[in-house]
Amino acid sequence: MNNENKYTDLGFAKLDMERTKRRGYSEAVFCECKTKEQLSGIFLSFKENGSNVIGTRANAEQFEYIKQTVPEITFNKEGRIIQLIQNPINKIGEVAVCTGGTGDIPVAEEAAATAEFFGSNVKKYYDIGIAGIHRLFDKIDEIKKANVIIAVAGMEGALGGVLAGMVDIPVIAVPTSVGYGSSFHGLSALLTMLNSCAEGMTVVNIDNGFNAGYSANQINRLIAGKK
Amino acid sequence: MNNENKYTDLGFAKLDMERTKRRGYSEAVFCECKTKEQLSGIFLSFKENGSNVIGTRANAEQFEYIKQTVPEITFNKEGRIIQLIQNPINKIGEVAVCTGGTGDIPVAEEAAATAEFFGSNVKKYYDIGIAGIHRLFDKIDEIKKANVIIAVAGMEGALGGVLAGMVDIPVIAVPTSVGYGSSFHGLSALLTMLNSCAEGMTVVNIDNGFNAGYSANQINRLIAGKK
Amino acid sequence: MNNENKYTDLGFAKLDMERTKRRGYSEAVFCECKTKEQLSGIFLSFKENGSNVIGTRANAEQFEYIKQTVPEITFNKEGRIIQLIQNPINKIGEVAVCTGGTGDIPVAEEAAATAEFFGSNVKKYYDIGIAGIHRLFDKIDEIKKANVIIAVAGMEGALGGVLAGMVDIPVIAVPTSVGYGSSFHGLSALLTMLNSCAEGMTVVNIDNGFNAGYSANQINRLIAGKK
Amino acid sequence: MNNENKYTDLGFAKLDMERTKRRGYSEAVFCECKTKEQLSGIFLSFKENGSNVIGTRANAEQFEYIKQTVPEITFNKEGRIIQLIQNPINKIGEVAVCTGGTGDIPVAEEAAATAEFFGSNVKKYYDIGIAGIHRLFDKIDEIKKANVIIAVAGMEGALGGVLAGMVDIPVIAVPTSVGYGSSFHGLSALLTMLNSCAEGMTVVNIDNGFNAGYSANQINRLIAGKK
Amino acid sequence: MNNENKYTDLGFAKLDMERTKRRGYSEAVFCECKTKEQLSGIFLSFKENGSNVIGTRANAEQFEYIKQTVPEITFNKEGRIIQLIQNPINKIGEVAVCTGGTGDIPVAEEAAATAEFFGSNVKKYYDIGIAGIHRLFDKIDEIKKANVIIAVAGMEGALGGVLAGMVDIPVIAVPTSVGYGSSFHGLSALLTMLNSCAEGMTVVNIDNGFNAGYSANQINRLIAGKK
Amino acid sequence: MNNENKYTDLGFAKLDMERTKRRGYSEAVFCECKTKEQLSGIFLSFKENGSNVIGTRANAEQFEYIKQTVPEITFNKEGRIIQLIQNPINKIGEVAVCTGGTGDIPVAEEAAATAEFFGSNVKKYYDIGIAGIHRLFDKIDEIKKANVIIAVAGMEGALGGVLAGMVDIPVIAVPTSVGYGSSFHGLSALLTMLNSCAEGMTVVNIDNGFNAGYSANQINRLIAGKK
Amino acid sequence: MNNENKYTDLGFAKLDMERTKRRGYSEAVFCECKTKEQLSGIFLSFKENGSNVIGTRANAEQFEYIKQTVPEITFNKEGRIIQLIQNPINKIGEVAVCTGGTGDIPVAEEAAATAEFFGSNVKKYYDIGIAGIHRLFDKIDEIKKANVIIAVAGMEGALGGVLAGMVDIPVIAVPTSVGYGSSFHGLSALLTMLNSCAEGMTVVNIDNGFNAGYSANQINRLIAGKK
Amino acid sequence: MNNENKYTDLGFAKLDMERTKRRGYSEAVFCECKTKEQLSGIFLSFKENGSNVIGTRANAEQFEYIKQTVPEITFNKEGRIIQLIQNPINKIGEVAVCTGGTGDIPVAEEAAATAEFFGSNVKKYYDIGIAGIHRLFDKIDEIKKANVIIAVAGMEGALGGVLAGMVDIPVIAVPTSVGYGSSFHGLSALLTMLNSCAEGMTVVNIDNGFNAGYSANQINRLIAGKK
Repeated sequence: MNNENKYTDLGFAKLDMERTKRRGYSEAVFCECKTKEQLSGIFLSFKENGSNVIGTRANAEQFEYIKQTVPEITFNKEGRIIQLIQNPINKIGEVAVCTGGTGDIPVAEEAAATAEFFGSNVKKYYDIGIAGIHRLFDKIDEIKKANVIIAVAGMEGALGGVLAGMVDIPVIAVPTSVGYGSSFHGLSALLTMLNSCAEGMTVVNIDNGFNAGYSANQINRLIAGKK
Repeated sequence: MNNENKYTDLGFAKLDMERTKRRGYSEAVFCECKTKEQLSGIFLSFKENGSNVIGTRANAEQFEYIKQTVPEITFNKEGRIIQLIQNPINKIGEVAVCTGGTGDIPVAEEAAATAEFFGSNVKKYYDIGIAGIHRLFDKIDEIKKANVIIAVAGMEGALGGVLAGMVDIPVIAVPTSVGYGSSFHGLSALLTMLNSCAEGMTVVNIDNGFNAGYSANQINRLIAGKK
Repeated sequence: MNNENKYTDLGFAKLDMERTKRRGYSEAVFCECKTKEQLSGIFLSFKENGSNVIGTRANAEQFEYIKQTVPEITFNKEGRIIQLIQNPINKIGEVAVCTGGTGDIPVAEEAAATAEFFGSNVKKYYDIGIAGIHRLFDKIDEIKKANVIIAVAGMEGALGGVLAGMVDIPVIAVPTSVGYGSSFHGLSALLTMLNSCAEGMTVVNIDNGFNAGYSANQINRLIAGKK
Repeated sequence: MNNENKYTDLGFAKLDMERTKRRGYSEAVFCECKTKEQLSGIFLSFKENGSNVIGTRANAEQFEYIKQTVPEITFNKEGRIIQLIQNPINKIGEVAVCTGGTGDIPVAEEAAATAEFFGSNVKKYYDIGIAGIHRLFDKIDEIKKANVIIAVAGMEGALGGVLAGMVDIPVIAVPTSVGYGSSFHGLSALLTMLNSCAEGMTVVNIDNGFNAGYSANQINRLIAGKK
Repeated sequence: MNNENKYTDLGFAKLDMERTKRRGYSEAVFCECKTKEQLSGIFLSFKENGSNVIGTRANAEQFEYIKQTVPEITFNKEGRIIQLIQNPINKIGEVAVCTGGTGDIPVAEEAAATAEFFGSNVKKYYDIGIAGIHRLFDKIDEIKKANVIIAVAGMEGALGGVLAGMVDIPVIAVPTSVGYGSSFHGLSALLTMLNSCAEGMTVVNIDNGFNAGYSANQINRLIAGKK
Repeated sequence: MNNENKYTDLGFAKLDMERTKRRGYSEAVFCECKTKEQLSGIFLSFKENGSNVIGTRANAEQFEYIKQTVPEITFNKEGRIIQLIQNPINKIGEVAVCTGGTGDIPVAEEAAATAEFFGSNVKKYYDIGIAGIHRLFDKIDEIKKANVIIAVAGMEGALGGVLAGMVDIPVIAVPTSVGYGSSFHGLSALLTMLNSCAEGMTVVNIDNGFNAGYSANQINRLIAGKK
Repeated sequence: MNNENKYTDLGFAKLDMERTKRRGYSEAVFCECKTKEQLSGIFLSFKENGSNVIGTRANAEQFEYIKQTVPEITFNKEGRIIQLIQNPINKIGEVAVCTGGTGDIPVAEEAAATAEFFGSNVKKYYDIGIAGIHRLFDKIDEIKKANVIIAVAGMEGALGGVLAGMVDIPVIAVPTSVGYGSSFHGLSALLTMLNSCAEGMTVVNIDNGFNAGYSANQINRLIAGKK
Repeated sequence: MNNENKYTDLGFAKLDMERTKRRGYSEAVFCECKTKEQLSGIFLSFKENGSNVIGTRANAEQFEYIKQTVPEITFNKEGRIIQLIQNPINKIGEVAVCTGGTGDIPVAEEAAATAEFFGSNVKKYYDIGIAGIHRLFDKIDEIKKANVIIAVAGMEGALGGVLAGMVDIPVIAVPTSVGYGSSFHGLSALLTMLNSCAEGMTVVNIDNGFNAGYSANQINRLIAGKK
């Protein structure tokens, strides 16, 4: 281990071992572009260091392989998340995770699981998109009780803007790549969200449930009085 | 005049003189890319033929110039429309023209003036976008009474989708180039509208209030029992 | 079931059970991004509610799976549509469905099946694109008898504009992703259609035969005197 | 005034007069696409209602014109903001507004003025972009003391990602249209920010200092214990 | 003059003085990005060399300035072309120059003037676009008599494809930047033309009437039996 | 068979049976988006009519299937072309088919086979791109002897422009989708070719070897004195 | 002045005063997005510090204004560069600056002036683009004598690739925004250069003559044995 | 073999056999779009000629096939490179190859292997991206000792700009297609790099580790005193 900067250098990766101390939150690992051998080494290092770690955009094959070395990990298949929790965190506050449609659920699950991993209570409101806006109105009073809202939507992506126009808490919008034709793999929803006239909404990358969950948790915990 | 096809050939333009008879509606002239001299010649030909004609995307300078030769024309400045009406048409049915914001009004005016020119009654509902959705709900029962809705919106462009989700009449959505940054001159609103999950909405070109008005009028008159 | 809003909440989906009463048309389900387990639950709910329902962009595997639970469903393979019809609708009026080429037929079939499901008579005119324009002229008198035209075309996508220039009924243009190179998965045809100089044509999303069929049916039935 | 929904309907605009009560924050007016006559009417309505109001993307000509009717307004030229403050708000907490370069200052000023208008203390750190990263390091300990960071940057737009990697508070990134060539009017910076690997950063529209300021203020006040 | 390669080196430009001998055609000068001083020097060199030369995308100010030094030049204002003809060429064969609308005429004039400059007879067919396709049918028998067709069209840009489907001679399609909204400055027409299903059509750059005229002349003269 | 227009209507396709008489060239069939059953029906119709026909973008499976019904067809695997030749055509003139690299050969083969099918002699010059420009200079005198040049190139796509600058015969440029990264599936080469400063070059769609071959043959035969 | 980091903090800008010592090269100032007042303050600070400084993308108005305070500055109008030279640098080695056309000269002048400012001898080869490739061949032996080549070209942008294929020294390619239509403000040339098959060429931003000159000088001086 | 130009013409490829003599470096072969049969012929030709040759973007199947004929070749699987080394080159100087993340390693390996093949010593610094900038600072003093830096990064792609701001040696930036959503297959990182404000950085195509390695080696060897 590098003494001064407190990271472990595996050659192909440099792991931040003191992140919880230094930045307040555990490390996250983007699994999609890593080999299963690399991931196995990474999770083992965190295990040996006694840290929590979350792996995103992981698949079942990666999970099975890593599990042989680090059997403590768990897998959220729908949210594509591998977790190693060695120091359980106390969940506080509340984050509302909403989706426009059923197809947006995998990204929403990634966001929800991430927010929970880093210490937030999460409530889910799925399939409340604007094509049938009465479904949203049914839930709005409950949604408003959260500290932060995550709005996950593909195609026209208008859910976030409608929500932001009705509440006075922060909304984090996540465009999804659900759709076809001129949705252009999420570009349509991304542009809709960036151009919303409703104030108080910010946006993350297409399909980036992880960052939405991370950011929502960060804000939620700060509002709830803790990091 | 060309006998067989009933158009007047000015060299730079071939004018359809029997359009009302043949297709049921008067001719329209796209003014933006024509010189004032060309436009003057065109309007004069229609005058001499006793026809109605509508000029779109016209400016004040063009209007003043043509007026010297064809003093009967009128100018709708906000909608950028020049009209020559020699055979008044009976307005029937109803078209509802809605905008998301105040900045969308010029395109809405183009749509409204066009629908009226071709024979529809028009009611206007401006600045009812989704950022303050209660304004829309206030008006929805009235809007629903029309035969066709025109939804004009820029930036996030979600107005049309919200409307289409609440009514069972055709919605024609017009994206506008209002906005900045990643609105990309109307691309954002265009994609939002094309990707709407709400059925029964179709879309026209960015800022094309004319075609929205034309199409809405056509449908309105067919529903109301006339061409 | 939610009493006030009349929808069934399956958690991953909220189903509109009183849509026919409230909006005049049955519910539609976008199958592409749903798991077969989700779809099976959705169709079962509609069956139990005694409603009609149409599933779009469905595949054979989804059909076979749902059929085990809801054996009454039928599958239109070319149009990728699953139907559950418990209350047959009376077909009225006429919608003309045209394609530019043979490759556009699947999207046209989706449009045609949708229009029929919601209550329109449909006539089909396939492979009449402008590369051999005499094929179109042969059929134009027959096409004109419909109340609405659906024009399905990929690549250059000019079919809709040529048709709209020759008729005085509404044309709904559907760009398709058929093609290669600079067709950019339907973008070329989409832009062609949006920029048409022929009035009276509106556009839906690339490959969105469903919305074209829905919108055409809606207009057709309104013209024919019924919702 | 509309009794039930508490807005004033000027025809071209529908003004939310009870927004402070209902949503906790004053109304904002997007000036860019409105005529000076429309703006004058809008500001007068808010004056008569005794409300605060902020106008964004305003120019000097608009300011001078409105001032004739509502002399109490003030103009922040660099941030292009017109303010009418009739009920001073108590500023709490702290928002850090940072820019990559000098050219990003106008957007940063818009963000800063907005955050102050809605009730936040603001500290400014300008021209600390990554091309000379020691300037950023010099200030990082001071920046970290804020509750929220706004990172304004054009061209490569990397400032936000570097900041987010060094702090554990929310970062709101604002891409600017500063630059030339392949910056494509802010697209480059927008994509950089959306694709950042540093967690805890969210993004707003290109040049949208207003929404960044609004969102930062909202989060800051919630953290500081008030709306 | 460089002896071996037969060009005159002005520092800022290297002029091909033996092009007619070597390649069969005179030199062309792209005026748009050159200063009037540079252009004056260039035309003077060709004058002194006794050559013909054509300047494209020129404006009136450039023309007036060059004329002071080279009074023999002529200016085609609509086609934005400056010509210096010292060795009249014999025009042979025939090129048909067609436009979809009136707004496409400037580009068509550039094409026509270029084809004439290099030695072709030209016939013009303006405003025969597909929105009123009977105008095109009226002229098709006459158009077919040419050796090459140039089809100039903006917006939907379908003229070329319709023409190519009806003739068995080469069609050169020129997209124009006429239009607005999703025409994206000619991109729409360009894609339409590239994706045409009608064989025998090739495409040049948006607004590039010059290259269309040059290429059409080259083919026309080769067919007519001369270079 | 439709008597007046001389095409066979198969429902999913309308086949032009008198094309050779009417337009001078045989019919072509785009195979990519057709089922093998459709193709089999199409080829059989042409066989029974005694016509030649060429199928493009065909695969081996389609070929094997059609062959069962129409055993006379042949398959050019590299160029993905199926041919049915019942009336051999006399090849005249000469078309030069050049490629920038080895990866461009499949598209070049499509062009070459098409030009031969419709009646041109073809010479091939492969892998002569500008990265090693001496290879091109070695061949230029031979290439110049053709009546038309086809220049096939991907990635930077500069081959066509270099050739057009050295010859005085028409060049038809074909961008290919060969490459990766910012070649964006052929967009890079397409833009290069459209923006070439060398006169006398026109462009076809990305990977459209067929249209290049068709157009080159058409010009070649007209120059050589025949259709 | 900040003691530790050796920069002067003007509030709107933080100036690197020890850059020559620390990084070996003087500071550069991007003038385009700065006010003349800001620039005047910046140049004065450098003057007082006794440093050299170069201002890029400057206009005449900015120059005249700054000159009132810092009369020692000079202005290269074509290259849009303001220089303050207080410590003349010894020019070594050689950089060859080439352009495809005359319109590319302003960007080339920016590159040349920058390379000279930072200590390189520069030779210029203008208007040697591939449309008349013999002009390039005439100069190639001379060009090869440089340590680095800068290739400036717009539109098709092939100059760099042709040069890189003929030499064994580094080529830095600069796309320019010269052109029209599908050159898309330099995108075409940028993509051409990025996709070149000729090794040894790297690319800078569209119109970024400054960075090309800076990078070429850096490499040239390192090859010539000095920083 | 062609005597005058010293290349071997295989029909589908023209191989440069005297490249080492003429241009100083061995030939490279782009394997991705070639068949294994073509590659086998190409490598055999180089073997018989006694030359070195490097094959890029090769896969295992190609390697195994070529090996049957040319057993001397070696395969770098991660960098996708096949090498045939018959004349070992002396490695001099130093190139630093850095990556932002673990997912960028394959492209970095391609760059490193290429630089070594052509004669440079290489040191690797992987996973030092700006999300955890202390990892980069740990290594910066060591990185600075190289003659050239290669910075490989996807997604936000800011690594190169941060490095270039801290050193005074050339930086060659390689965007990678690692990422998802609005990374648009590397476009995001490409634009970031092109728009960097840090001078002295140039850019190559997305994922083009080969050209980065080639260019870095060329500059490194020139600085180190040799070609």
